[in-house]
Amino acid sequence: MPLTREEARDLDLRNPLLSAGTRERFCLPADTIYLDGNSLGPLPVGVPGRVADLISAEWGTGLIRSWNEANWIGSHRLVGARIAALIGAGPADVHVGDSTSVSMFKTMVAALRARPERRVIVVERSTFPTDGYVAAGVADLLDAQVRWCEPGAIAEALDERVGLVCLTHVDFRTGAMFDMAEVTRLVHDAGALIQWDLCHSAGAVEVDLMGADADLAVGCTYKYLNGGPGSPAYTWVHPRLQEHLSNPIQGWMGHRNPFAMSLDYEPLPGAARFASGTHPIIALGALDAALDAFDGVSMQDLRATSLSLTDLFMRLLDDRVGVDIVTPRDQNRGSQVSFTHPDAYGIVQALIERGVIGDFRDPGIARFGFAPLYVRHVDVWDAVQHLVEVLERNEHLAPGYAERAAVT
Amino acid sequence: MPLTREEARDLDLRNPLLSAGTRERFCLPADTIYLDGNSLGPLPVGVPGRVADLISAEWGTGLIRSWNEANWIGSHRLVGARIAALIGAGPADVHVGDSTSVSMFKTMVAALRARPERRVIVVERSTFPTDGYVAAGVADLLDAQVRWCEPGAIAEALDERVGLVCLTHVDFRTGAMFDMAEVTRLVHDAGALIQWDLCHSAGAVEVDLMGADADLAVGCTYKYLNGGPGSPAYTWVHPRLQEHLSNPIQGWMGHRNPFAMSLDYEPLPGAARFASGTHPIIALGALDAALDAFDGVSMQDLRATSLSLTDLFMRLLDDRVGVDIVTPRDQNRGSQVSFTHPDAYGIVQALIERGVIGDFRDPGIARFGFAPLYVRHVDVWDAVQHLVEVLERNEHLAPGYAERAAVT
Repeated sequence: MPLTREEARDLDLRNPLLSAGTRERFCLPADTIYLDGNSLGPLPVGVPGRVADLISAEWGTGLIRSWNEANWIGSHRLVGARIAALIGAGPADVHVGDSTSVSMFKTMVAALRARPERRVIVVERSTFPTDGYVAAGVADLLDAQVRWCEPGAIAEALDERVGLVCLTHVDFRTGAMFDMAEVTRLVHDAGALIQWDLCHSAGAVEVDLMGADADLAVGCTYKYLNGGPGSPAYTWVHPRLQEHLSNPIQGWMGHRNPFAMSLDYEPLPGAARFASGTHPIIALGALDAALDAFDGVSMQDLRATSLSLTDLFMRLLDDRVGVDIVTPRDQNRGSQVSFTHPDAYGIVQALIERGVIGDFRDPGIARFGFAPLYVRHVDVWDAVQHLVEVLERNEHLAPGYAERAAVT
Repeated sequence: MPLTREEARDLDLRNPLLSAGTRERFCLPADTIYLDGNSLGPLPVGVPGRVADLISAEWGTGLIRSWNEANWIGSHRLVGARIAALIGAGPADVHVGDSTSVSMFKTMVAALRARPERRVIVVERSTFPTDGYVAAGVADLLDAQVRWCEPGAIAEALDERVGLVCLTHVDFRTGAMFDMAEVTRLVHDAGALIQWDLCHSAGAVEVDLMGADADLAVGCTYKYLNGGPGSPAYTWVHPRLQEHLSNPIQGWMGHRNPFAMSLDYEPLPGAARFASGTHPIIALGALDAALDAFDGVSMQDLRATSLSLTDLFMRLLDDRVGVDIVTPRDQNRGSQVSFTHPDAYGIVQALIERGVIGDFRDPGIARFGFAPLYVRHVDVWDAVQHLVEVLERNEHLAPGYAERAAVT
């Protein structure tokens, strides 16, 4: 007997996040069920005002003085400290700035150069593509090799030639999640360093980098952290490694005293040494305001809600639809659910037509993210109801959709 | 006989930029004479509205759909084409994204790897520090060497070991400007490539990269291009080189088909191959709106106004103040004037107190930028009048200022 909409509503009434008003911290368009916060988080309510003030008052009126008077110069550190609190890191150990790709490049190069006798980077085959592209570029630059591995067979890929293992904490297609502490131990036992890509986990699941004894982490901020399109990425470096790693992109903002304008480069202490150029002030203001959505939120509540939402979606899919779910049924999953279907593209498009926004990923995957700060159990129930109707009425077989599906 | 304020006003009345209303394209605080647009351009009037719309409508309502529907995916190329028009480049040959430091890193690595038999990067000693830091980092990474040279002695630094020469078109301290075509010829004759740093020239002087037959250029957009604090930098690559240079930071946005999510990296054609991660959408929106300030502006008028403003400032300094001007008196200068003074720090601070915003640079340099789109000849006159009064009343010798001066 499938769970009813009323029962879903009851689950929401017992949800501490909703009770604390976290959903009201976002501008959510009417008649939309947004299940794509794992691709681009929605607009947090404080962002428009904060950015408007930054632009008109700080830039427009304060002009160059705002570098000091509005603390633009330190804004990336303040934002870094706020992100640190969400990923089990110390406040001075997170640097914010640059894109995810650039951030990964820096840490990968730094890690590989720190152990010149180990010339292999291990990357899982199902990683987000940019991770693999960056690794291949780094390997080419440093005369090293990329060794591809299957996510379920990390141990087999490890040997004394491996310097760095780069894994995505939560798989962007399936939502499968690594046990960070266990895999980190495995990698350390083989004498290698590990870098975690947190793009699809931070802000939706508990992340404890220090607890897991990880080495490096990089993540974007425009998915579950809701920083806005193209918002800057962050880099975490374990304190034990910071003094041993060199940022290959030496720019003035990573310099101990940038305004001395001296010829010699002398890096800042801490993770701040991974800064290069001038940080993006407007984007950092937006991100800072966006992070207010996490104020007072317990990561345990966040994770419990995420598991409850994804569990409900999978149960309703089983009971009412019957599709091949590729997301793990156990707790080794992030905050998304994906299923495969020959008409996955059409299904996603037909749902979007109905205001249920998920996304399609090759090959044949329909993907739905359940960001626990604003997605409710009734949204899950309604989304499945729409899916049932789409399939009943063959809305997913509209001519344009089939064409796209044939291409993939 | 020093020129009078009325004569300065007459010069403004004959200025085609002011007549076209370019000054009204900026939000300029009352009672402020802004002579620091060479550090941070002021707020263009269209930016607040454009960013507010991008955030509230495109992000808030459009959500993930705006990647296509609002053309976020192509926004960096549109902005790149607009910048290209200001620097004598083809529209597909400019990539926008990343910081200046990161952009330089990519092109320096690419250039040096393209000619493995030439292992020396020449950098002038008076360059903006980050250029030298990046070059040193690149040299360290690629087992190459940085060779420092004096800006007046480029030829002496060239030999068959030099692969790349990195010069700043306009010196950030003195405002001295290289003859781009002549120096490029010199460098090419020695078999090396040249990279121009346009941070302190583009948007204030005529830049003709194709006309000068240059190889590479990088510039920031937050000075004379008025893109806002930390706005993204641009990279130009001559079309003849694009297919021969590899971006060392291979990210998905430089991939020919990012959403195929394939394992193999295949670069985009053109300068777009220098993209790495997701581009900063909000910052690009601000920059796009900012570039409207150049609509219909002839670069010849811009340059003529710039020369007239800086000429007036130097003449008035000579006639009414008497300081050591370090900016060239001939036309080999950008759009700034700098002078040295034992109390330069105090002078700049006292002027800021009066609403005349310039800046101080070690060692002992007072620096004033004259952005021709919004600075008037009467502003120049008034700034000098303030300076005369500051010195007469010893406002520059206030106790706090002296302390700072002693440190430098």
